[in-house]
Amino acid sequence: MASTPRTETSTPDENGAAGPFGTVRLTPLTAADPIPGGFPTVGVIGGGQLARMMQPPAIEMGVRLRVLAEAETGSAALAIHEAPVGDHRDLATVSEFAAGVDVITFEHEHVPGPILEKLVADGVPVRPGPAALGFAQDKLAMRAKLTELGLPCPRWAQVRTYDELSAFAGSLPGGLVLKTPRGGYDGKGVLLIDELSGSKALTAREWLEKAGPDGLLAEEKVAFTRELAALIARSPSGQAAAWPVVESTQKDGICHEVIAPAPGLSADQAALATSVGLRVAGELGVVGVLAVEMFETADGRILVNELAMRPHNSGHWTIDGAVTSQFEQHLRAVLDLPLGDVRARSPWTVMVNVLGGEYENLYRSYLHVMARDPGVKVHMYAKDVRPGRKVGHVTVCGDDLDDCLERARHAAAFIRGDIDE
Amino acid sequence: MASTPRTETSTPDENGAAGPFGTVRLTPLTAADPIPGGFPTVGVIGGGQLARMMQPPAIEMGVRLRVLAEAETGSAALAIHEAPVGDHRDLATVSEFAAGVDVITFEHEHVPGPILEKLVADGVPVRPGPAALGFAQDKLAMRAKLTELGLPCPRWAQVRTYDELSAFAGSLPGGLVLKTPRGGYDGKGVLLIDELSGSKALTAREWLEKAGPDGLLAEEKVAFTRELAALIARSPSGQAAAWPVVESTQKDGICHEVIAPAPGLSADQAALATSVGLRVAGELGVVGVLAVEMFETADGRILVNELAMRPHNSGHWTIDGAVTSQFEQHLRAVLDLPLGDVRARSPWTVMVNVLGGEYENLYRSYLHVMARDPGVKVHMYAKDVRPGRKVGHVTVCGDDLDDCLERARHAAAFIRGDIDE
Repeated sequence: MASTPRTETSTPDENGAAGPFGTVRLTPLTAADPIPGGFPTVGVIGGGQLARMMQPPAIEMGVRLRVLAEAETGSAALAIHEAPVGDHRDLATVSEFAAGVDVITFEHEHVPGPILEKLVADGVPVRPGPAALGFAQDKLAMRAKLTELGLPCPRWAQVRTYDELSAFAGSLPGGLVLKTPRGGYDGKGVLLIDELSGSKALTAREWLEKAGPDGLLAEEKVAFTRELAALIARSPSGQAAAWPVVESTQKDGICHEVIAPAPGLSADQAALATSVGLRVAGELGVVGVLAVEMFETADGRILVNELAMRPHNSGHWTIDGAVTSQFEQHLRAVLDLPLGDVRARSPWTVMVNVLGGEYENLYRSYLHVMARDPGVKVHMYAKDVRPGRKVGHVTVCGDDLDDCLERARHAAAFIRGDIDE
Repeated sequence: MASTPRTETSTPDENGAAGPFGTVRLTPLTAADPIPGGFPTVGVIGGGQLARMMQPPAIEMGVRLRVLAEAETGSAALAIHEAPVGDHRDLATVSEFAAGVDVITFEHEHVPGPILEKLVADGVPVRPGPAALGFAQDKLAMRAKLTELGLPCPRWAQVRTYDELSAFAGSLPGGLVLKTPRGGYDGKGVLLIDELSGSKALTAREWLEKAGPDGLLAEEKVAFTRELAALIARSPSGQAAAWPVVESTQKDGICHEVIAPAPGLSADQAALATSVGLRVAGELGVVGVLAVEMFETADGRILVNELAMRPHNSGHWTIDGAVTSQFEQHLRAVLDLPLGDVRARSPWTVMVNVLGGEYENLYRSYLHVMARDPGVKVHMYAKDVRPGRKVGHVTVCGDDLDDCLERARHAAAFIRGDIDE
């Protein structure tokens, strides 16, 4: 839709001593309107909560965001002025969107490679670029690349047939995990197989039949002691920054809780996890924020689990807990601005997700949480409540980890309605 | 302008596995669209940087802002979805605006009292209310009220004639300050008179001739050692919170630099300044943020200078420097949500304003500042640069005050172009 015609008015001073006005008019600004001061516009593909959370730092920085949203009622569309609706799998749509911005970035990895390649060929800055994103889009390509680089991974195999799967399973001491190489997230596209028999074997056969020509990714089920995440930002010029390594806890395949920094992690282990993260960012040519999810094992190994080339749930703690948040940093990186300080602002920060639960109206429980704990930071995503859906998160910073944990867990459970006192 | 007609689309999942779409459409949401989860809409009168800075916490809280702006290109209009343009001095305009929101608040004190009274009579929650705002709109009423309450003020007089002014000047050991009771801000409407003679006497006569029936406010020129500010938030239910008292430095009548907390302020003096702020908030029935600017004198007195019933420049340090910023707290207060923790997050926070200077394009100097100092937080207001106009601010938090001061001053001076190294 084209820009709405604008009406001339006298410009009042900033404190409101205004000239003559008409009645209320709603005339949204569009990308055609320049921002004073020479500041750029960032185009984000995807209109969920990750795009939404880029808007507060964008406003502070004086940068404008434009979002290509999946629907008019998305989480980002309520917060970001320009959130046109369009299909990110359609070249014409994405090209039209790109024409109105200075750089294209993403809140998900689902834009098809050929579209990204065409944008680059047309001279659009695409950050991260298609080569890097390819490794986030295809878990088989990611495993092959990390193995080639000598980075620590779980044992894995590309399996196209049940016989290949069975042979790989037989080589493992414990169970395995079967993954679709493309399109999975938050536990979807992942099949945990403790023993390859019975209904699990049947499901595995079905998945293999439905799989593309590349088949599936099979990985050993790692007997991990806990999960860690390294959060990295990298700019086009190669500057990189690494936040403190965190511990993350999953529930039903979804990130549930994050503690920053990871409690009891030795300096050596922290340095190892950070160096793996930095190496992945550099070798894969990532631009923007990269989250590397890792397993820590009882024998002290750190194995790369998943990659995300965008701000990530394991980094939400940085909004309140670090000098520079992952969302500000992502914007800095994709704009090729110098990166900001990634130090933690408190000895401990705990982030707990708020998933949809008992209540449809969250505002009432939200205000009770505020009344109980003036120091908890509640972040809401303006999404319809559905059971298990991420609708917000809470953060508590402090000097005492147990206190932070208790307060953050209580607040999250109270908002969703698990507890009422 | 009415809401654009909306088209039905299938709702995709949050990671973008979307249904069929058309091409890019721009269909802004309006106040008619409900926010999921039962969250409210706050209407802000005024579209400058103070309204703009309310938007990041509003997004985080899941609250929607709607702004009645002075112009389509205002600072807030670039950041806030719904920024209809209209005259805040027109009852029909303000009433129409109020119909689409759950509560009305302000970024300035310029809405005429009769309009506010009519909104209240129509059942609109107006926060702060007209009675409180009257004291911010009329400096004579403010002085009379504070004096009635026994709160410490500079010596003052209501002067309607030159003879009255001359008599008051003769009663003072030093000079005086002549103020228009209504409409002044940032040094405008203030005449400093060291000696009532010559051109100053002529100007004073002119001001008196132009003054309304209430005349002017004359105050002693206080021989202050420095200026302090107490920042208070108060909710409709009477809950109040006070941030640490800060030291502020003015330049040409405009707030230039703020240090939190005020260096060397004794616990007794801090408690006195805070109690004056809390008393003003309570006795005047303020709802929202109240800034009380004060003079500290060599003999240890603290005198109330000015009041502002809204987020204030002396509180910008709270965005990066306090657990709860003045902008989040203002939204909490006007929504009658419990107030947040007002503690400082670092031993020292320094805020320096960026005024328009040499450069029209600030983006270039901005990125140099980021490169020099990854820890400085730069806030830009997306305003056209005009000499002396507030176009942004910088904040530095840390353990060493001298370091914070040097870095914040350097960054602000570099962005505006005063220095180039």
